[in-house]
Amino acid sequence: MRAIQIVTTRLSSCLRPIRFEFLSSSSSPRLFSNPRRLICTAAATKSDGGRSGSIVAPLVENEEEVQKIDVNPPKGTRDFAPDDMRLRNWLFNHFKEVSRLFGYEEVDYPVLETEALFIRKAGEEIRDQLYCFEDRGNRRVALRPELTPSLARLVIQKGKSVSLPLKWFAIGQCWRYERMTRGRRREHYQWNMDIIGVPQVTAEAELISAIVSFFKRIGITASDVGFKVSSRKVLQEMLRKYGVPENLFGRVCIIIDKIEKIPIDEIKKELGSTGISEDAIEQLLQVLSVKSLDDLEDVLGGAGEAIADLKQLFSLAEKFGYSEWIQFDASVVRGLAYYTGIVFEGFDRKGNLRAICGGGRYDRLLPTYGGDDIPACGFGFGDAVIVELLKEKNLLPELGQEVENIVCALEKDLQGAAATVATALRSKGQTVDLVLESKPLKWVFKRAARINARRLILVGKTEWEDGSVSVKVLSSGEQFQVKLNDLE
Amino acid sequence: MRAIQIVTTRLSSCLRPIRFEFLSSSSSPRLFSNPRRLICTAAATKSDGGRSGSIVAPLVENEEEVQKIDVNPPKGTRDFAPDDMRLRNWLFNHFKEVSRLFGYEEVDYPVLETEALFIRKAGEEIRDQLYCFEDRGNRRVALRPELTPSLARLVIQKGKSVSLPLKWFAIGQCWRYERMTRGRRREHYQWNMDIIGVPQVTAEAELISAIVSFFKRIGITASDVGFKVSSRKVLQEMLRKYGVPENLFGRVCIIIDKIEKIPIDEIKKELGSTGISEDAIEQLLQVLSVKSLDDLEDVLGGAGEAIADLKQLFSLAEKFGYSEWIQFDASVVRGLAYYTGIVFEGFDRKGNLRAICGGGRYDRLLPTYGGDDIPACGFGFGDAVIVELLKEKNLLPELGQEVENIVCALEKDLQGAAATVATALRSKGQTVDLVLESKPLKWVFKRAARINARRLILVGKTEWEDGSVSVKVLSSGEQFQVKLNDLE
Repeated sequence: MRAIQIVTTRLSSCLRPIRFEFLSSSSSPRLFSNPRRLICTAAATKSDGGRSGSIVAPLVENEEEVQKIDVNPPKGTRDFAPDDMRLRNWLFNHFKEVSRLFGYEEVDYPVLETEALFIRKAGEEIRDQLYCFEDRGNRRVALRPELTPSLARLVIQKGKSVSLPLKWFAIGQCWRYERMTRGRRREHYQWNMDIIGVPQVTAEAELISAIVSFFKRIGITASDVGFKVSSRKVLQEMLRKYGVPENLFGRVCIIIDKIEKIPIDEIKKELGSTGISEDAIEQLLQVLSVKSLDDLEDVLGGAGEAIADLKQLFSLAEKFGYSEWIQFDASVVRGLAYYTGIVFEGFDRKGNLRAICGGGRYDRLLPTYGGDDIPACGFGFGDAVIVELLKEKNLLPELGQEVENIVCALEKDLQGAAATVATALRSKGQTVDLVLESKPLKWVFKRAARINARRLILVGKTEWEDGSVSVKVLSSGEQFQVKLNDLE
Repeated sequence: MRAIQIVTTRLSSCLRPIRFEFLSSSSSPRLFSNPRRLICTAAATKSDGGRSGSIVAPLVENEEEVQKIDVNPPKGTRDFAPDDMRLRNWLFNHFKEVSRLFGYEEVDYPVLETEALFIRKAGEEIRDQLYCFEDRGNRRVALRPELTPSLARLVIQKGKSVSLPLKWFAIGQCWRYERMTRGRRREHYQWNMDIIGVPQVTAEAELISAIVSFFKRIGITASDVGFKVSSRKVLQEMLRKYGVPENLFGRVCIIIDKIEKIPIDEIKKELGSTGISEDAIEQLLQVLSVKSLDDLEDVLGGAGEAIADLKQLFSLAEKFGYSEWIQFDASVVRGLAYYTGIVFEGFDRKGNLRAICGGGRYDRLLPTYGGDDIPACGFGFGDAVIVELLKEKNLLPELGQEVENIVCALEKDLQGAAATVATALRSKGQTVDLVLESKPLKWVFKRAARINARRLILVGKTEWEDGSVSVKVLSSGEQFQVKLNDLE
């Protein structure tokens, strides 16, 4: 009795018809022309011993249909196969180790947040690309595009229960929904370090010091990358000088941040639409081309906070020991609306790559969300551009699997004994790959080589009767027998 | 000139009106009665030096409105403040260390997957609770409810480029959209270990060994928890015996998994609706109450695979050294449709908690997705129930912040010097909390105590002129001066 049935999947009411995403990526190893083919395998219903008539099947559905799936992750997202994961762990461990050396505590927040947390109206790119949804309870939610708003939320929530300053770090996945396909992905991981409660530039100076430490650890030098540093107070003082209302500040910053991305006439038009006079626009644009603090002082005068902050930062850079890494550049404003003071970005000196990292002071973010007036600054450092840079510089580490021992029974009957050996070694802190099937020795040696095993432990009948095993040191070929209890 | 304006946020076309979620949680430290109040602060536009008439502001928007936010994370999700994160890291590090000892490689997949990957029609709870959305490109996507489908996808994608068996582990966040509020959260982290390519029960036996190793590391004993073990082949053989079509297998398993959750009459009704005879249903339910392998053999006969697999598993358990942890229990079927062979779950012996972990063999999952016919098994271990158990047993570790040094300048002028000292120590691998402001010594001592600093390094004028600093060992009170270069 064989029944072959083609059925379609019955979807619950919450589930609308499925649409598949076809990836344009040509590197996809398998792409099915018809990803939703429902193929039913032959469902043999053996009636051996069954009582005839014991089943009436009015609605027999064939559970084991074959539903060929798109084997690629959703567009713009990544799988981390073991090789990729080793690299990711290597990178994240450096992030963590630097944060630890600087005395920062790790935190995390939900990857899914209320959409409102990310809605600011300064015209940021980050908002236009919000990966947002309506959930099943009709709530507007978003996969976080950045970590800072969640940090602000948590700090406000903790209120007086925490002692300032807070020094926190996080490594979290961030998302953006980009309609264009420019080879940019829709998710990346970001390392953030933030200081909450320190109004002085010492905070920004320490943050940059942390990033420099990170670069040094992974072999990046001051001739590879640098930091462009400015202060939003430069723009603020210019706007004040030209009588532009302060409430335009965030919008003006966002427009100016686009200077290298869109034509200058567009910039002028956008600035003009905010109501700023042509004269003021020309002066603003001129000050952005200033590349030295002395020249800036000529424009702004010596009394303002912008100059004072920047001077202090450069002086501290010397004390922290990273003067050669930083330079003043008035054109740096960064693309987030909430920055208020020092802003900085890490760049590759060859100019091939996008900004490697960026950050600054955001003293007004907490009060804007309804929290206390607490100063703050921080940076974000993505996991994508740095890997590009490391590739370019040939600095990517070679990271293979590393298992100390491979344990193998020489006969099927001894698989239990091999399990005992593996357990003994593992309880001593040794890593063990236990061969779970009967395999020829040739296969075992090949596997041992692939996992970079240091020793091959063979469990054979004669030795095991004596409580012993054969050990082969794979680098030297040395071979010996040892009692299991004496095996370290 | 002061302009106070109340404006509403202009949303881009993609963003529908914002709805806030009101949390019922009474523990929320701050809950605003009107979360979307738009309050504008006074925007003072100083016209000092501004050219009169230089600005026409037709559409002035006040950027710095106060948008009080709900300070809690979205319903059912968690923030990880430093304390929570330390516990999470402690737990995850044990997951990772056990996986490493067993020679497993870490992998990860996107938290957002195509919804179709999770749609199986056996009536699983996991599908009814799918956290699914339509994205901005009208694609059906879901926050993953489990990791196994993504693993299967990646294995199929890798195809012949990987050598079997694969031993992989992952720690990933999983989501479910639960309408009921039973104190269950909407996200949790899950530790998975999987073996791809081993048909023998040695694989399941090793997986349980790994979980036992984990329990032992964190202080949980065989008198605290145990594993109930069965095989889906028991049900399969019963169905075969009663002539029930094999294609009903998954559905029957899912119905039977609900036995302890819904009344037995409901179970019978659901089973009846699949077309199984009343007689067969009675026999099925009876076999599920069997608690010993000998009794099972009486029912099924000695020839079947179910008995053979289970016997081998119990024999291997002895060799791995965890016999006292496991027991046969025919009622265990697990709630996922794809299991085909051995199934197991970890439970607390006091019976207060839900299953701690669970897993089994899923030999048909890869071919169902269109992949090769590769056997596989694995388990999932959540981060929630285990923490409950540890609390109950008073086994939760006390994890404070640990920073070796706190470095502080005694005068504001010496903050740069303190930065130099901090940098020197950090480059030697010492963790340093640098005091970034001028603070009284009392404050510094309090902070040192809070972060469990071992040493306080004071940078004073006289000593620094000599290149020295004062070191106070906080445990002993011992105090000495030392040249910075000699400070280890």
